[in-house]
Amino acid sequence: MSLTDTLKWRYATKRMNGTKVPQEKVDNILEAIRLAPTSGGLQPFKVIVIEDAKQREEIFNNACQQPQIKEASHVLVFAANKKVTAEQVDEYIELMAKTRSISVESLEGFKGMFAGSVAGSAEQNFVWAAHQAYLAFGVGIVAAANEKVDATPMEGFNPEALDKLLGLDKQNLGSTTILTLGYRDEANDFLAKAAKVRKSKETLFDIR
Amino acid sequence: MSLTDTLKWRYATKRMNGTKVPQEKVDNILEAIRLAPTSGGLQPFKVIVIEDAKQREEIFNNACQQPQIKEASHVLVFAANKKVTAEQVDEYIELMAKTRSISVESLEGFKGMFAGSVAGSAEQNFVWAAHQAYLAFGVGIVAAANEKVDATPMEGFNPEALDKLLGLDKQNLGSTTILTLGYRDEANDFLAKAAKVRKSKETLFDIR
Repeated sequence: MSLTDTLKWRYATKRMNGTKVPQEKVDNILEAIRLAPTSGGLQPFKVIVIEDAKQREEIFNNACQQPQIKEASHVLVFAANKKVTAEQVDEYIELMAKTRSISVESLEGFKGMFAGSVAGSAEQNFVWAAHQAYLAFGVGIVAAANEKVDATPMEGFNPEALDKLLGLDKQNLGSTTILTLGYRDEANDFLAKAAKVRKSKETLFDIR
Repeated sequence: MSLTDTLKWRYATKRMNGTKVPQEKVDNILEAIRLAPTSGGLQPFKVIVIEDAKQREEIFNNACQQPQIKEASHVLVFAANKKVTAEQVDEYIELMAKTRSISVESLEGFKGMFAGSVAGSAEQNFVWAAHQAYLAFGVGIVAAANEKVDATPMEGFNPEALDKLLGLDKQNLGSTTILTLGYRDEANDFLAKAAKVRKSKETLFDIR
């Protein structure tokens, strides 16, 4: 199936049927998210992966009363770093040095590009980190469709409540989006057969 | 090629060789961006597509002195809406009614979910619209790799200068990111053969 057809197949699934997504498919989706590019390569976010029904029910009760939370197989919470820290940059530079078999010293110039972020405000940092999380979220959405796994991209939840429930507030993280993975319940999902609504090519693009 | 292999193949191309990307491939990449999901489906952004060498040189001279701007085949500028307007929501509701052959009146309840955005500040609106642009940007990056087209996701440019040059400041738009499309110049690109640096699965994911 072409990527165009894959993207036409997917939709923001409103009801899921509880069927488990095979681990191999979950792994492929996570691997795509892991490979997503980010600004400077810093990957300033974490993805919390919740399969356990009890934990999903707690999310439903406390932070996001949408049925997919309970009907999904897995709930992925994309949480961006609230602050870019010097330690985080050091860890990244060490990872790069190790991965490429080069010295940490040779990366001093590259490391400098993060100085502004480390010195910047948490508010600015979180806006920037959230951008990277959204980019990876987009990659994850494509990856799920590519595995023929239904997914619901969600923003309509209470981030403060979710952060507290998952302990993200104590980890320099703030939740930005949720992606539920599962399988569509066609009989009960009004959106399953609705035509996709998108701006025309002429409206969305300005071809110069 | 699996999506994992496709994402391993891609990298943030630093030097391109000037070869034109066939129109069919550009069209497929744009179609993926058009099909990307957005919050509420509003697609609060535009993508400016620039192929003309003179216009790309102006961008290089005024807003983004990275060689890919000139060496690429196409430059895509993702520009998010600065303000969500009542007119924009009306247009969307009309598009949905037309696409699904239903009445505008039957969508009153759905339309209500945008009331907060329309009443909200431009600052809040732009943050939210930029999130949607980044999501679509992520989809575009995957789509380019899927077409075996090299691409460079860029943030390091002067958005004010770019907005002025492209006239976006007069269109309720602000540039968020650039994606250049083209083909890698392996001989001159130090990144072409460098190992990809990514956090381990254990570090990036919190599997509960």
